[in-house]
Amino acid sequence: MSEQNRIVRLISRPVGSASRENFAFEDAPVPDPGEGEFRVRVHFISLDPAMRGWMNENPVYVPPLPLGSPMRAYAAGFVEASRHPKFRDGQAVIGMFGVQRYAVSDGRGVMPVDTNLAPLERWIGGLGMPGATACLGTHRILEPKAGETLVVSGAAGAVGSIVGQIGKRLGCRVVGIAGGPEKTARLRDVYGFDEAVDYKGDSFSRRLREAAPDGVDLYFENVGGPVGNAVMHRMRPFGRVAVCGLIARYNDADASGGGYDARAAASILLNRLKVQGFIVSDFGPPAFVEAIKTLAQWHAEGALRLAEDVREGGVDAYPETLNMLYSGENQAKLVLRV
Amino acid sequence: MSEQNRIVRLISRPVGSASRENFAFEDAPVPDPGEGEFRVRVHFISLDPAMRGWMNENPVYVPPLPLGSPMRAYAAGFVEASRHPKFRDGQAVIGMFGVQRYAVSDGRGVMPVDTNLAPLERWIGGLGMPGATACLGTHRILEPKAGETLVVSGAAGAVGSIVGQIGKRLGCRVVGIAGGPEKTARLRDVYGFDEAVDYKGDSFSRRLREAAPDGVDLYFENVGGPVGNAVMHRMRPFGRVAVCGLIARYNDADASGGGYDARAAASILLNRLKVQGFIVSDFGPPAFVEAIKTLAQWHAEGALRLAEDVREGGVDAYPETLNMLYSGENQAKLVLRV
Repeated sequence: MSEQNRIVRLISRPVGSASRENFAFEDAPVPDPGEGEFRVRVHFISLDPAMRGWMNENPVYVPPLPLGSPMRAYAAGFVEASRHPKFRDGQAVIGMFGVQRYAVSDGRGVMPVDTNLAPLERWIGGLGMPGATACLGTHRILEPKAGETLVVSGAAGAVGSIVGQIGKRLGCRVVGIAGGPEKTARLRDVYGFDEAVDYKGDSFSRRLREAAPDGVDLYFENVGGPVGNAVMHRMRPFGRVAVCGLIARYNDADASGGGYDARAAASILLNRLKVQGFIVSDFGPPAFVEAIKTLAQWHAEGALRLAEDVREGGVDAYPETLNMLYSGENQAKLVLRV
Repeated sequence: MSEQNRIVRLISRPVGSASRENFAFEDAPVPDPGEGEFRVRVHFISLDPAMRGWMNENPVYVPPLPLGSPMRAYAAGFVEASRHPKFRDGQAVIGMFGVQRYAVSDGRGVMPVDTNLAPLERWIGGLGMPGATACLGTHRILEPKAGETLVVSGAAGAVGSIVGQIGKRLGCRVVGIAGGPEKTARLRDVYGFDEAVDYKGDSFSRRLREAAPDGVDLYFENVGGPVGNAVMHRMRPFGRVAVCGLIARYNDADASGGGYDARAAASILLNRLKVQGFIVSDFGPPAFVEAIKTLAQWHAEGALRLAEDVREGGVDAYPETLNMLYSGENQAKLVLRV
């Protein structure tokens, strides 16, 4: 086999944003699976906000990545050279294959996917983890009722755009917050949000108030920081807040910014809010699979708009592509083509 | 009747702490009840953290008090001159009688109490609103399990001391936070807390860590500010936080302090906390009465220690006595004898 593996290893822990210096880019032979294993030719790598946390020394949900390891990543590809009874060559799969061209797996945590129902990149794009996160966070934490006002931040992202569409389906008035006119236009025109507010524009708080004049019943929090506070100030009595992400501060070395200000804290008390953090794995694998199935069906019927922003450059482009997440440069769920 | 009424009226809205200048002290004739009404001779007035909010122009749960009105207050007294079919002269009652010697009532929101079960002041002291708040907040919001670590701030106060005792009864490890060695000693010696931490002492965070070395499962939040943040930083996965009060900032004119800092916000996400605000009236009158009955029974059996800090000086001492709440000068639930 003339093709080589290419592995991106974490070699130092970033302070602030990650950069090329934190990684080594290594050529290696294509690995051979042992008994009970198979090889995956990775075609797409999922770029997720959680990745920055995985680079830290302190555990964030999962153990920290030891220095020198291939960078951890969800990815999608095809099975090759299988010596595993349940996986056959050519099968499309998603799993934690890392930032590399080839991975060897024993099948744990690997899920076969149906590329007739959706193209391969979509299973780590709109479907997959973001879809399950949106679906379970909205249903289980926010418990929306028809007629309620739902605000979602990071609304043009993978999770946010699905949260908004679920909200519309449940009869909510849906307001999305995103950065820049291109994204806000897409929220309205593509995803069918009732209102879209650009947090980068002037008078963000005033425009949020105009978009949700009666206040906010449900807030799906993806960003935190000043955007999160502005929404918290607008919450109505007995509102619910699902804290899914606080991307605004993932790159803060000292974390001195961020948090919920005094007025937001007072809103928790005065409005008797329920503010609850969650990660999708808390709900367990059966709920995850059920959520994905529901969304895939709905997507196949044309009733759910999903999008990926697929970037080129292969594994060598990983650091710069990852940082697009934090600068807000990506236009949808960010995926790197290998 | 030679006795006069004495009424404390709110005449201006305080900025920061309330002071004598915000009130008028008026002599007036003893009022006569109309048909379907009765008079109450007020003996004890309850001093509650919520009072400061009632003085503001913006509504806090209830409509703001119009300037010129008698200051709103829970109080306890005896019925006189009743022209109401359900209330008889000499009956002990609690209700919203205001800061005055005599009130006229149509019976709405008035609850008869049994002075054989507990002395009159106790029904607006440990029993009454603080007891119901502690009982319902702990059971309904925190949902404690035996073996969990419960931290309560404002632990020497009316609500906090009862929360701790309920926690012990449910098999929790209970850590109280209070200001000063006298209060912390009482938490251990009188109320049976496992640990007590003085937030006014040096190295508060370190001592909190020592008192709850395995972290905190349940936090009953009465104060907010730096104390609240220190506890939030120690929360364990799937912890619950009942936000009952944020007394640390009630007197802040600009509310620039307070709030939950970035690390506390991150804890909500990373530990998947449920942070929920509540006020006791949210649970409805039947739950309130049920909670008080349970506590009164438990108290009569000698299994619940309750205390009031009864201050003298009559209604004229209202402003200074109220401010003891915010300075932490009171040693237990604060009550003013009329």
